[in-house]
Amino acid sequence: MSDKKKAVILLSGGLDSATCLAIARKENFECYALSFDYGQRHRNEVEAAKKIAATMCVKEHIFINIDLRKWGGSALTDNIEVPEAGSATGIPITYVPARNTIFLSFAVGWAETLGARDIFVGVNSVDYSGYPDCRPEFIASFSETARLGTKACDENWKFIIHAPLQYLKKHEIIKLGSDLGLDYSLTHSCYNPSPEGKACGKCDSCRLRSQGFSEAGVPDPTIYA
Amino acid sequence: MSDKKKAVILLSGGLDSATCLAIARKENFECYALSFDYGQRHRNEVEAAKKIAATMCVKEHIFINIDLRKWGGSALTDNIEVPEAGSATGIPITYVPARNTIFLSFAVGWAETLGARDIFVGVNSVDYSGYPDCRPEFIASFSETARLGTKACDENWKFIIHAPLQYLKKHEIIKLGSDLGLDYSLTHSCYNPSPEGKACGKCDSCRLRSQGFSEAGVPDPTIYA
Repeated sequence: MSDKKKAVILLSGGLDSATCLAIARKENFECYALSFDYGQRHRNEVEAAKKIAATMCVKEHIFINIDLRKWGGSALTDNIEVPEAGSATGIPITYVPARNTIFLSFAVGWAETLGARDIFVGVNSVDYSGYPDCRPEFIASFSETARLGTKACDENWKFIIHAPLQYLKKHEIIKLGSDLGLDYSLTHSCYNPSPEGKACGKCDSCRLRSQGFSEAGVPDPTIYA
Repeated sequence: MSDKKKAVILLSGGLDSATCLAIARKENFECYALSFDYGQRHRNEVEAAKKIAATMCVKEHIFINIDLRKWGGSALTDNIEVPEAGSATGIPITYVPARNTIFLSFAVGWAETLGARDIFVGVNSVDYSGYPDCRPEFIASFSETARLGTKACDENWKFIIHAPLQYLKKHEIIKLGSDLGLDYSLTHSCYNPSPEGKACGKCDSCRLRSQGFSEAGVPDPTIYA
């Protein structure tokens, strides 16, 4: 039996969450990857998550199917056009209502079942594109809610929600992952890929990613359309 | 177009959530019912939720399929025997890890999309069987987490999580619902029903329900095995 501490890692298949997984491994956690198929437009993410989890030898990888298209309300899950970068201010149309609250809730459920107290999530406040559920205040509040809503409260411990990318710029994230040996060609970031899975190079996510590789001085392995 | 305020109601198909729906209707909300098929043993709940929503004329009823059996950990979702009443203390084996956190997260996602600020949930601290995610502290904390993780924070409003049954005894809940005209024969509470859907009469849930009808002086419409 392993004497490593267990951690649940939210793994989207994107650059940030893959870096989180690399960090959790480096910190010697036994990693349990949790991914979601929520009807997102950028389906390549789902395939990317599978490849990343397999390559990085997680202990277990669970996929949860949840159809957030039932109520739509986001360009990622609804029939709304994904905008090109810089076309709006405030909360972007690619925000999926309560997505991270839902994802973290599942992570807590699995962690409680596994006996894990550590959860890793790749939220970021610097290049966070205006998503409310990436704020540090949200993460701190969620952690307290999770404690109160589980046996943690009765047993006098709490969940530690690790957000190691919270204050890093995209190029710092990429540098960190590269130093940890992460193969970013496995990851997918584009909100609006071509049918063959090539990145559009125009959406917010592509723009941040491309600029990040450039500033990190790391070759960009992304295949653009 | 309706000038009623919209509310999302978590509807399990049990006695408590049906009473919540009756209360939300009485308070003149336009009701959006949200139910989950999470691989629970007591499948009759799912059918009950459909009947209740149809009978009580909700504006829309959404079912979310989420397979919590992927990690088990509860007698309701795993291959663990449902105990008879009074056989244990502390958090019972029928507790499903983080269930209400997950359910409320979906409710917030739908509410945000609908433009609703009100959510009804049938949690209860009196006859709550020891579930940590039924505590008032948990509900209050969740409400704050939901505000921080959605556009509510940017727009300076908050979600109101109504828990009208929080401090009521089971017989008071039944009396209240009966006074509102709720037909409790539509509801299902048993954790361990017979293949034909009859209540076992022995689990915690059956015991509380049966005692509640008796103390309320309301005829018990439950069909016991």
